[in-house]
Order: sequence, then C-alpha cells, then structure tokens
Amino acid sequence: MARIPDHELAERLAEAAGAAIRPLFRADWAEEQKADTTFVTEADRAAEAAMRAVLEAERPDDGIIGEEYGTRNEGAGRQWVLDPIDGTTSFIAGRPIFGTLIALVQDGWPVIGVIDQPILRERWVGRIGHGTTFNGKPARVRTCKELGDAVLGTTTPHQFAGEEVDAFMGLAKAVAERKIIYGGDCYNYGLVASGHVDIVCEAGLKLHDFAALVPVVEGAGGVMSDWQGNPLDAGSDGRVLALGDPARLEDVLEAMG
Amino acid sequence: MARIPDHELAERLAEAAGAAIRPLFRADWAEEQKADTTFVTEADRAAEAAMRAVLEAERPDDGIIGEEYGTRNEGAGRQWVLDPIDGTTSFIAGRPIFGTLIALVQDGWPVIGVIDQPILRERWVGRIGHGTTFNGKPARVRTCKELGDAVLGTTTPHQFAGEEVDAFMGLAKAVAERKIIYGGDCYNYGLVASGHVDIVCEAGLKLHDFAALVPVVEGAGGVMSDWQGNPLDAGSDGRVLALGDPARLEDVLEAMG
Repeated sequence: MARIPDHELAERLAEAAGAAIRPLFRADWAEEQKADTTFVTEADRAAEAAMRAVLEAERPDDGIIGEEYGTRNEGAGRQWVLDPIDGTTSFIAGRPIFGTLIALVQDGWPVIGVIDQPILRERWVGRIGHGTTFNGKPARVRTCKELGDAVLGTTTPHQFAGEEVDAFMGLAKAVAERKIIYGGDCYNYGLVASGHVDIVCEAGLKLHDFAALVPVVEGAGGVMSDWQGNPLDAGSDGRVLALGDPARLEDVLEAMG
Repeated sequence: MARIPDHELAERLAEAAGAAIRPLFRADWAEEQKADTTFVTEADRAAEAAMRAVLEAERPDDGIIGEEYGTRNEGAGRQWVLDPIDGTTSFIAGRPIFGTLIALVQDGWPVIGVIDQPILRERWVGRIGHGTTFNGKPARVRTCKELGDAVLGTTTPHQFAGEEVDAFMGLAKAVAERKIIYGGDCYNYGLVASGHVDIVCEAGLKLHDFAALVPVVEGAGGVMSDWQGNPLDAGSDGRVLALGDPARLEDVLEAMG
C-alpha cells in the first residue's frame, strides 16, 4: 500500500481532531453540571488522542510532541507537533476563531503546518517550498506599503510583561489604533496568510503554538521571526512576529524599540 | 395587506443588510486598488441603504437613526436604530465576528433588538416581554455562581481611558485572566444571551452600538446597565455592562471600584 504523503496525512489529522472537537463546541455545560474548563480539557484530549491514533498507524517511527499526552520518539528527526485547541478561551466562550495546529518539524525546522478551524471548516495548509492553501485554493499575503496602513493582530494584552509591554505599545502606536484586532490566537496568522491581516505580534508562545504557523505564513509569502528578526526554531524565546509583507520587518522592529 | 409585525420586519432588515455585506467580506481590495477602509465604508453604506429602503416602504412614519445616513422623523415615538457593521475592524481583518445591529426604540426604550452575523448566518433576536431567540430557537443566559468562574469579554483595551482603565482592570483581576476574551464587539453580547459568556464590559458606546443589545441580553434573562448599575437609555454615558446572571451585578460593580 502506498504511503500517504505527509501533507495529506497532516490534513487527515485535522479531520480526526475536528470530528472530536465539534460535538463539544457550545455544549450545554450547565446541563451536564461540568465546568467549561472540563469540556475544553475533554475536547483537547479527545482531539489529540484521535490525531495520535492516526500517527501510530501511519508513521510509527516519527516523533510526536503533544500538548496533552507528551512526547513519543524524542530523538526522531521527524517530529509531529500537535496543539489540538489553540485558543482555549475562544473555545470556552463559543467563538469559532480557535484552531487545531499540526506541524511536521524536520531536524528542528517546521516544514508543514496546518491551521484548522473545525466549526467554520476553514483550513490553511502550508508547505515550505510548495506554498500555502486555504480550503484547497492558493493563499497569498498582501503587500503593506507602510505601518500606518497595517492591520495588527494580537490575542490579549495580558500576554506581555515588563519591557514587552513597551515594545508592543510602540508597535500599536505606529499602526492606526482602530486597526488593531484583539483575540484570535492562531486564526490571526491564517488571516495574514490570506492577505487580510498584515502583522501579528505575540509573546510567551511555545513550540506547539508557533511551529505550524511558520509554513502557513511563509508559504503564502510572509515572514515569521522572533522580536530580533531571527528565524523561529525549537529554541526560540516565544516572542513571535508574523508579517504578510517581509519588507516591513525592519519598520516593525524599529517601532518596537 | 396585513402589516408585517415589528420583529419580523427587524429580521427582514437583517436579511437586506446581510445581502449587501456578504459580497464585500474578504473582498480582494489590493486587486481593486482600494484601501480596506473604503470597502468597509461601502459595505456600511450599502447595508444601511438597503435597510432604510425596507423601512421607507413598510414604516414611512417611523423614525430612523442610522450611523451612515443620519436621522429621519426625529420626533417620532418609534425609532429604528441601525448600525450596519458593528465591529468594523473585525470586518476589515476578515474575521466573521462583527454584526449588524437593529433596534426598535419606543419612547426612548429599546423593545426589539437584532444582532445578525451575516457570514456565519447567526442571528439573535430579542423582544422585551417575549424572550430571545438564536437562529429561531430560544436562547438563555447561564447562571454564574462567582466572578472567579466568569468568562469576561471586551473588544479592545484601547476603549478605556483614565479612571476607566482602573475600573476595568479591577474587574479583570476578579475573573481568571485566562478567561478574558478580547475582540468581538456585539458578537460577545450574543454569546452572553446564549450562555457562553458571563460578562461584557465596555466604554464609549453610542446609542446605535448598544440599543439592539439590551433586548437580546435581557430577553434571554440577563441584565444590561451602565457602570453605576442604572438601566441604559438614550442619555447613557456609553459605559456599558452586560451580565448573563443578574445576581452578579453587585459583585461586578464592587470589583470595578
């Protein structure tokens, strides 16, 4: 039997996760006398278990780094990095702008990334060297001639501490205040890849939060980096920038001081 | 010919607005060489014009207060308050969590409210004395036993100035930080009515921003007030609270100092 290609397998993982998540979205928690946090944990675990079952069958030798069930085959050169629900607060609040993140990391570098929104059935798939698709059609970033024109996204102001606050506020002042979107988690990066958002700026991200985003954004023509403009890898400090137009990276770094 | 009931007319207005808005959502602005702000203005105007045309035909004597085209029949006891796109930044950024707001205000008090999300085709309709529906089915707030359990929503931290910042931060500290959702505009109030979000706290809202929200939230069993706990009317100062569980209002006011 032919081996399913990696990017098709990544989409199959997204299908498996979505099937586990959908029944628990906007579930009637009060009626079942459970806290909303119990449901998101259930959804997280069910989705990761579903993805791991597919990987056990299709890629028994690959490594897995999962948020809920830990690491398998730690030393493998190929690692699947799974975040079943990125944006748990949006999930809890019934907002369909969270996402399932799936990355294939090869020798430390993410080469395939999937952002899947299972309620809206929206999916970005990025492959280094092959471009990014949105629901199967090519996705492309847009140009951004100056920061004053940019739409800037970030999930929550509470993610920034100390000097990070000043750096973010520097960037916020350089764009128009009414063009900053809050909330959104991974969904904002998909919107960068599709040319609707120009910049995302965040801190405190872990490998499972950003590994899948890199191929999606960069496959669509954008760039991702840390706050010094360096490429993201497994050792990054969790401070992340995504730009639709790589030509604005220097302006962004300058605005952040 | 029988006169169409007010709440059915309100839904017809939502249909007319949605038909005008959908073609411009995620439109290819770069290709048409227009700024994204031009598109949102076009969508705003087209949607309000479509709603006004329906009102001209069905309710020629009623007043209209519209964001884009101003006021008609200012002295009428019945006023339709229209906000074609509440959440313009989400619209610009391609996030389907903005909404069309339609209110019927009678002698200064909102009696019918509609929150319509035309992309997801999600609609909340609230009628004082008749309850609230979500896509035609009854919507109901949930109970919230203590602030520490609450999901709190607010659109952007930039809406708060001066003492408002301290008041909001007091509330933010009383709930769990990881249960605050940012972004969302009117959509968050719909989620209060459906029992997914417990509190929304905002400032700087105008009559066309909040008139439609009151019947939706209160028809579902919640409460809306200003930051002193007083009911909202046309003379309110734009500081707005929505609670799914009215029993938490005193706790919220206390947390806001």
